[in-house]
Amino acid sequence: MRIAAVRVTPIAFRDPPLLNVWGVHEPWALRSVIEVELDDGKVGLGESYGDLETLGNLDRIKGALVGLSPFDLNGLMKSVYAVVGGEPDTGSTFPPKGDKARATAVAAFEVAFLDLQGQILGLPLHELLGGAVRDRVPYSAYLFYKFEKHKEDPGYPADDWGEVLTHEQMVGEARRMVEEYGFGSIKLKGGVFEPDFEIETLRALRRAFPTAPLRIDPNGGWSVETTRRVMPQLAADGLLEYLEDPTGTLEEMGEVAKFATMPLATNMVTIAFGHIPRTVELNAVQVILSDHHYWGGLRATQHLAMIGRTFGIGISMHSNSHMGISLAAMTHVGATIPNLVYACDTHYPWQEDEVTAGGKLPIKGGCVELPQGPGLGVTLDRDALARLHRNYLDCGIRVRDDVKEMRKYDPSWNPKKPRF
Amino acid sequence: MRIAAVRVTPIAFRDPPLLNVWGVHEPWALRSVIEVELDDGKVGLGESYGDLETLGNLDRIKGALVGLSPFDLNGLMKSVYAVVGGEPDTGSTFPPKGDKARATAVAAFEVAFLDLQGQILGLPLHELLGGAVRDRVPYSAYLFYKFEKHKEDPGYPADDWGEVLTHEQMVGEARRMVEEYGFGSIKLKGGVFEPDFEIETLRALRRAFPTAPLRIDPNGGWSVETTRRVMPQLAADGLLEYLEDPTGTLEEMGEVAKFATMPLATNMVTIAFGHIPRTVELNAVQVILSDHHYWGGLRATQHLAMIGRTFGIGISMHSNSHMGISLAAMTHVGATIPNLVYACDTHYPWQEDEVTAGGKLPIKGGCVELPQGPGLGVTLDRDALARLHRNYLDCGIRVRDDVKEMRKYDPSWNPKKPRF
Repeated sequence: MRIAAVRVTPIAFRDPPLLNVWGVHEPWALRSVIEVELDDGKVGLGESYGDLETLGNLDRIKGALVGLSPFDLNGLMKSVYAVVGGEPDTGSTFPPKGDKARATAVAAFEVAFLDLQGQILGLPLHELLGGAVRDRVPYSAYLFYKFEKHKEDPGYPADDWGEVLTHEQMVGEARRMVEEYGFGSIKLKGGVFEPDFEIETLRALRRAFPTAPLRIDPNGGWSVETTRRVMPQLAADGLLEYLEDPTGTLEEMGEVAKFATMPLATNMVTIAFGHIPRTVELNAVQVILSDHHYWGGLRATQHLAMIGRTFGIGISMHSNSHMGISLAAMTHVGATIPNLVYACDTHYPWQEDEVTAGGKLPIKGGCVELPQGPGLGVTLDRDALARLHRNYLDCGIRVRDDVKEMRKYDPSWNPKKPRF
Repeated sequence: MRIAAVRVTPIAFRDPPLLNVWGVHEPWALRSVIEVELDDGKVGLGESYGDLETLGNLDRIKGALVGLSPFDLNGLMKSVYAVVGGEPDTGSTFPPKGDKARATAVAAFEVAFLDLQGQILGLPLHELLGGAVRDRVPYSAYLFYKFEKHKEDPGYPADDWGEVLTHEQMVGEARRMVEEYGFGSIKLKGGVFEPDFEIETLRALRRAFPTAPLRIDPNGGWSVETTRRVMPQLAADGLLEYLEDPTGTLEEMGEVAKFATMPLATNMVTIAFGHIPRTVELNAVQVILSDHHYWGGLRATQHLAMIGRTFGIGISMHSNSHMGISLAAMTHVGATIPNLVYACDTHYPWQEDEVTAGGKLPIKGGCVELPQGPGLGVTLDRDALARLHRNYLDCGIRVRDDVKEMRKYDPSWNPKKPRF
């Protein structure tokens, strides 16, 4: 069984005007759908970013994968390294230059390879990855401040979440999230307003959801001094389960860790294996929000989890806007990680569209059930793929740019960091 | 496909009177052969220690594995944890008490589970583990000072290696090892004589093998001060590739690392994931000699390799006296580890007997070729198993005791550490 063809299809799907430290989400989110086809016609699926650099790398690698066995993950890695270039991985300087591009490309194809392995063997992916320790994976409600509608978005109605710019509106957003999906944990995307305002939002959420673990993620929008000033408010009455990326660099996170009274989480400062030694040295973070898309795949995620276990660092998962292929992959690997001790992030409720057959995967009781079909357990809806690819061709967006989008609302917008 | 039966058979095989810091090898080395049988009759093989504690644990776990899928490695882990007991693994205190016994038991069965997976899928084990980055795995010549023959060993002739107690005899041993097996690297088991004598042996080996990487392993037999005194001799002309376990504790290795001018290796002070944080903190070792038997199996070995890569720690492999099942397992996993940068240790040339069908696996050019059959690629010779089990029943040894054996030669023997 050998790989006969590889296809990478960029797609775009509707995304609400969600606010963050850089600005606001554009009307279209980009992704790529990876299909790895065996000589017997089986198709393994992967999903990755849809920006030009990633697409360029994936396209350049495709040809090198033809002829490989879908079990040869080291062969995949070798092909990726050969094509993407950058510094060689000598085992002593890690991560070398080019590491993130390579890890991203390996991940995109690795999920498709593993999907094929599972299909060949008739095994769901979590069994291939060592077996599930849980039969559903918990996710958290991912709350955003948001505008009512996109600027300059001809022909599209506003999403039905409405404007969320006040504490009351955010509690309403949270209620809907919790009612529709049963989430038990709540995360607020911060870095949008003054920290004191966002903390007041957190307090409103605490009153509405007295027992739900709360988190805030300012995406590095706060200075160390600002974080020091607001720490007593964040700590009061155990408001936060963890504080995610208050500051923007690993060294600053190490500074914050010295006075923080709750765990610090990150998906911004420790994002490659090469960052771990300094992270450990500084004791800079206590929770790594892993993301198989840039850590190098599902097996790399398991390696990362073992590193977390070894160093007493908690493991959860990070999310960008994504489709069901990635949600299935996250759920399979999450089920195999004993020390996945926090509910994972997902943007999934914000996406209305879906590229997998049967529509969106259900989130119930805040959890995604383990897909039980062979491999990933999801297949492509080819009509949807064609439609979402048409969106990509038509929407004109080629690289995500939340700053440019925000300037449509505020031409003077200039998101220097730290913002507060 | 479910597990229908599990068998653990203790075996004993002839072992030469090899000297080390504790004393001398007994005439019989103990191991256990693990058979995990599926409901369709397929048998997966594992190999572990043959001491009473390990056998007791493996026997107590056996029943809990019946009914499991051979793909459910997390289920295996759960069964082992439930039966062996010790402190729960919370992910924050690691390793908890009982960790080594659990890791040993998991490893014994994990190899058999993986062997079954490979047989079910028709894939060699290295493919299941991510694919081989090399088609043969290099091993080193493992040299021992030795007596000519065992004391009180009725009916058995002396082995044909003869006495090795002088520099010249050791060069002879090395020549035979290199001629018969083609080894490119040479390791001397030290801690037997005064360091100055053993260094003189190393110099004789250097003269006889001008380009072969040399190592010495005193098994923690030296004090920090002794190591400091002999460091210039060890460093002269790049005599050593690495220095293995000169001292007996992690803290002492950290002391030695401050003045050592070559990498330090260990299979004694960093032997569980829980030791790694302090190892990193002290920069105590630069090479970890992994051993799947006590690190928790082949996948744990891959996790360890990734940790090594992340922290710039080289990876090689440790060995006890073992059969072909373990040699095949080591070779499969070794082939999948990109940063396996040193030739591995093996006692295999010292063992005359073999429990796998077809006799001993060949070592050529210092390497073991990747077994290509499905799974481990080795099967049991049932007559040999019965014979080696009979040895176990007859030999009377139940726990390895090199000290007791040495007292047959020297009744006053008392191997206090550090010996030198």
